Amino acid sequence: MHATPILAPELEVERWLNVATPLSLAQLGGRVVLIEAFQMLCPGCVAHGLPQAQRVADTFSDRDVAVIGLHTVFEHHEAQGRADVLEAFLHEYRIGFPIGIDRPTGGIPETMAAYRMQGTPTLLLIDRAGRLRAQHFGSVPDLALGAEIMALIRDRSPVTSAAAPPGGRCDDGVCRID
Amino acid sequence: MHATPILAPELEVERWLNVATPLSLAQLGGRVVLIEAFQMLCPGCVAHGLPQAQRVADTFSDRDVAVIGLHTVFEHHEAQGRADVLEAFLHEYRIGFPIGIDRPTGGIPETMAAYRMQGTPTLLLIDRAGRLRAQHFGSVPDLALGAEIMALIRDRSPVTSAAAPPGGRCDDGVCRID
Amino acid sequence: MHATPILAPELEVERWLNVATPLSLAQLGGRVVLIEAFQMLCPGCVAHGLPQAQRVADTFSDRDVAVIGLHTVFEHHEAQGRADVLEAFLHEYRIGFPIGIDRPTGGIPETMAAYRMQGTPTLLLIDRAGRLRAQHFGSVPDLALGAEIMALIRDRSPVTSAAAPPGGRCDDGVCRID
Amino acid sequence: MHATPILAPELEVERWLNVATPLSLAQLGGRVVLIEAFQMLCPGCVAHGLPQAQRVADTFSDRDVAVIGLHTVFEHHEAQGRADVLEAFLHEYRIGFPIGIDRPTGGIPETMAAYRMQGTPTLLLIDRAGRLRAQHFGSVPDLALGAEIMALIRDRSPVTSAAAPPGGRCDDGVCRID
Repeated sequence: MHATPILAPELEVERWLNVATPLSLAQLGGRVVLIEAFQMLCPGCVAHGLPQAQRVADTFSDRDVAVIGLHTVFEHHEAQGRADVLEAFLHEYRIGFPIGIDRPTGGIPETMAAYRMQGTPTLLLIDRAGRLRAQHFGSVPDLALGAEIMALIRDRSPVTSAAAPPGGRCDDGVCRID
Repeated sequence: MHATPILAPELEVERWLNVATPLSLAQLGGRVVLIEAFQMLCPGCVAHGLPQAQRVADTFSDRDVAVIGLHTVFEHHEAQGRADVLEAFLHEYRIGFPIGIDRPTGGIPETMAAYRMQGTPTLLLIDRAGRLRAQHFGSVPDLALGAEIMALIRDRSPVTSAAAPPGGRCDDGVCRID
Repeated sequence: MHATPILAPELEVERWLNVATPLSLAQLGGRVVLIEAFQMLCPGCVAHGLPQAQRVADTFSDRDVAVIGLHTVFEHHEAQGRADVLEAFLHEYRIGFPIGIDRPTGGIPETMAAYRMQGTPTLLLIDRAGRLRAQHFGSVPDLALGAEIMALIRDRSPVTSAAAPPGGRCDDGVCRID
Repeated sequence: MHATPILAPELEVERWLNVATPLSLAQLGGRVVLIEAFQMLCPGCVAHGLPQAQRVADTFSDRDVAVIGLHTVFEHHEAQGRADVLEAFLHEYRIGFPIGIDRPTGGIPETMAAYRMQGTPTLLLIDRAGRLRAQHFGSVPDLALGAEIMALIRDRSPVTSAAAPPGGRCDDGVCRID
């Protein structure tokens, strides 16, 4: 949890699946956005993270909450980096929400780096004003998550200029996984 | 869920456990109140309802949410009706929140009747203004419950006089389980 | 697990439930006997031990395996010691196999003491020849238990006189829980 | 379950992982063999079948029971058919037992066809004499599986000539999935 919310870095996505046209945080403004960063060969993502994201999509109205998966391949690039394998995975696991493939760099992909994620699964919550409000690495209980999401649904506080850092991006050289 | 919230009927409790002095909804005013109505020999209460109530108590601040168990014995009165058995049950299951024993009538106990509960487990949510906002018979998912509780925590709308029925009680002759 | 199997001490039961006539190990000779020692207010018994015993009863033929519950009350005697409470418990939890109430002593009940049990749940396995072959305190995985039971079903080795201690009972002064 | 056991068809494997040299049923003769046929993008295999096979490997001595995974790709050939993806999958899911890649045909792979499997997960049990004794499509409870395995461990009946069909293979034209 960031003490002072920052504007969430825009998603850098190479390709979108499960959706007709590319998405962006800018375009989703006004809704709460949940981003589930995952890798298809990550056991914790398959067992916990993705089913939880699907439950969020099933529980909340999509007028209030947009659920997005982000495939952040930072290991086994050869194995996990192919879109056709990911498509087969999404088909077999009946995952219906939009999935963006985080733009590859050969190491940590771009969006993952911008958010300084520590690994997968990582769950991001972005408020209606586009500010990053929570970032959970590992599992988060459903009860606490339901409460966090509802708090953001009900929160209609305006964006203060102070909350937006110059540039609005965490894109300096230190945004890297150890 | 009541279309128009009514003032929650006051708890009619014969005896309190896990607490030094008797509680009342009137006294808890200003906080959200979760009431878990259970019977100690009800498998769904033991497996799901009570652990969930404990998770709520562990997740939310007690300044915002008061969690109360209500022992609503409507079957096996002889077996479940003794306070010493209930005390042993609470001890073994490490249940730490306040427990009220619903005032017995020989059939449906008083509070259970006032709320027209269908059985156990039943989960009640009462807002800061003392209005009954949700009543779930059976299990409710953690994700939805977390959201409901947070919505009530954030809701500071005033009590409208229209919302309070004359007498503020559901105490007419038809408040009985089928 | 006893290095050298001993004859299983006979059950000392005050009263039987779920069965028309009293049972005894002597009378069950020729079958494998699984005894689930439990207390109705023991969380591990309710969550794991008793459901597992019911699965054993459902999985194996009762010509091969007899499943018996033994209510070994060694704490909360007042609360757990009443047969009517136990009957309500068995009814609500849909437990259909025979249940013996271990003969009370005011402390550790008689059968529990004879087997030197450490607590509940404890699972005993007795072979077709009446010898105690396994004693598990706490939980045992289904996979291992299924294998243990089948090994005893297939085991038709004769009782050796050496395996039976004089008297055939563990009834000396040290058979007590620490 | 086959009414009359047949000799288990030999494994037709394109490549072995997690093992230094290729395996064969012939070479495993004398041990009970459990074969877990799976696909890495099959949710039931990931959630149930493979963890259960790992539990078998952890519970029984490898002198008695050999556990083998068989990657039977019959759908999403492009996505699942690459050995490097499978290797990454095995690494991430910590699967340590030997894995054979069923020889591809473009449709149903060879071993899968020889056993007339209906899909994945399928669990095969082969006795010490090389006879197919159980074939389960879908999930099988641990308790029943533990018993089945132990029955085969203890079974040392000789192979009767009648049990072995001419050719010892299910390799005629009808061995195909519907």
